[in-house]
Amino acid sequence: MIQKLIAGIERTGAPIVVGLDPMLSYIPQHITEKAYEEYGETLRGAGEAVWQYNKGIVDAVCDLVPAVKPQIAMYEQFGIEGLRAFEKTVRYCKEKGLIVIGDIKRGDIGSTSQAYAVGHLGRVQVGAKEYGVFDEDFATVNPYLGSDGVKPFIEVCKKEKKGLFILVKTSNPSSGEFQDRLVDGRPLYELVGEQVAVWGETCMDGRYSNIGAVVGATYPEMGRTLRKIMPKAFILVPGYGAQGGKGEDLVPFFHEDGLGAIINSSRGIIAAWKQEAYAGYGAEHYAEASRAAVLAMKEDIAGALAGRLHRGC
Amino acid sequence: MIQKLIAGIERTGAPIVVGLDPMLSYIPQHITEKAYEEYGETLRGAGEAVWQYNKGIVDAVCDLVPAVKPQIAMYEQFGIEGLRAFEKTVRYCKEKGLIVIGDIKRGDIGSTSQAYAVGHLGRVQVGAKEYGVFDEDFATVNPYLGSDGVKPFIEVCKKEKKGLFILVKTSNPSSGEFQDRLVDGRPLYELVGEQVAVWGETCMDGRYSNIGAVVGATYPEMGRTLRKIMPKAFILVPGYGAQGGKGEDLVPFFHEDGLGAIINSSRGIIAAWKQEAYAGYGAEHYAEASRAAVLAMKEDIAGALAGRLHRGC
Repeated sequence: MIQKLIAGIERTGAPIVVGLDPMLSYIPQHITEKAYEEYGETLRGAGEAVWQYNKGIVDAVCDLVPAVKPQIAMYEQFGIEGLRAFEKTVRYCKEKGLIVIGDIKRGDIGSTSQAYAVGHLGRVQVGAKEYGVFDEDFATVNPYLGSDGVKPFIEVCKKEKKGLFILVKTSNPSSGEFQDRLVDGRPLYELVGEQVAVWGETCMDGRYSNIGAVVGATYPEMGRTLRKIMPKAFILVPGYGAQGGKGEDLVPFFHEDGLGAIINSSRGIIAAWKQEAYAGYGAEHYAEASRAAVLAMKEDIAGALAGRLHRGC
Repeated sequence: MIQKLIAGIERTGAPIVVGLDPMLSYIPQHITEKAYEEYGETLRGAGEAVWQYNKGIVDAVCDLVPAVKPQIAMYEQFGIEGLRAFEKTVRYCKEKGLIVIGDIKRGDIGSTSQAYAVGHLGRVQVGAKEYGVFDEDFATVNPYLGSDGVKPFIEVCKKEKKGLFILVKTSNPSSGEFQDRLVDGRPLYELVGEQVAVWGETCMDGRYSNIGAVVGATYPEMGRTLRKIMPKAFILVPGYGAQGGKGEDLVPFFHEDGLGAIINSSRGIIAAWKQEAYAGYGAEHYAEASRAAVLAMKEDIAGALAGRLHRGC
């Protein structure tokens, strides 16, 4: 699966993933009004609004980027109806040729991780039949429970030729509270990174592994170290844009050939129409604002990577 | 909410939570057959089988225990239809007067944890309306992202008078891989435990906090230390029974007054009919086998706690 992602990055020239993390406050009024007219101000109405909003953005950006990353929490908060919008979004994005990274951050004891792995990446058995369920291409996984909580995901990835991004150093301000604690003089995230490299060896797909890592754009120096510790892992980098990460911060996450990382932006793209820079598009043309924000991000990253070439670093 | 749990423990004399973690292989054939006849060997058929199976167990044990803990992964693996069974199970258990601990192990950056907190413990806003969604009483939370990933859950708990159990030392064999790593000579799980105590101070409900911890029965010595580090936290103890924890292992998790811990058993209760000791009940009477297993577990724990009194330790 990582080779498919690489092919998508090379085709589009954009190591970018669009975070489909819809909040109702991002959705233009004409969409919510229509959904509420049809289904009322209900969970179903919210799910419908989210789905229509996503669809507009996906249609507007699907030729520009290789991948999307729906954050399941934003759907799960509306219960069954929200998860129905998640399911529709995953399917629609795959139909449009996009790779789908399910940002689910699951992780549990072995038998339970097995159930999550099957439901999100594999196929579940019911009697004599088998079903793909949410059927994302990649999923994010929380490593706090250690190897036996991660391995069921790896086994399903091997079987289904799918992939993972394991949380190593997250983008949020207090991620250091536990992740940076020194173990024998080295931060915990480095040990997790080393383990990602070990897990990754069992699941190679060409030069890169199907087992990648999540490292926040907000911590570029740590990204530089982790890039070395996990040379074969693709790094999914959240935190660009709204969370504070800038183009130049992204350079250390990439290998010199310009591969090895994919940068996520959520709010910065999907709610672009609410930002001053794109306000001219107006609510009606929110999806075009998202498209413009992707193009600007692509330029920002390309500029930063070209800058590295110039500086020879 | 923790006082409600304590009242339930005192009423039943059972510091026991029944883990509703259904696997299709646990479900008696007469239930799956009926569900498949009605809905086919489909995800909907699986969801229906899970729901009917749960209902039987809940009816059989609801007077014996204060709480249940549905593990959402076991439902999520069947997608929307599985989550519908989760939702129905949560509602039914609450109607029966049981406290529901949603074993969701969620945890993310702030804005995302906020969405999970709202969807599982709080109320979500849609236009001018508000809805309780999954509406569990407690949820389990993964702390790997640090305070800003946990605080949105705490805020919702304060508002809704609900509670959390935060993963400190999990029951699985490889939990030590990261959780036991020494930070300044002390294992990481102790630092997480200290933080649980700090978070807990902000959310007290009588002598105990609404912010509790998860510590596996499989690690009783660590439980003893953590009991001291988090004196006001209730400890949710998984790993009894099928995972290897025994009655005597549970003693260190309790305070001397017999409170402070609640022990989970999943397979050991819900799949009791498949064990040699309860095989006499047969598939038809699986729920009575579960009842018998709860009674045996209650006796085992009471015996172990009485043993402590006798030994004066």
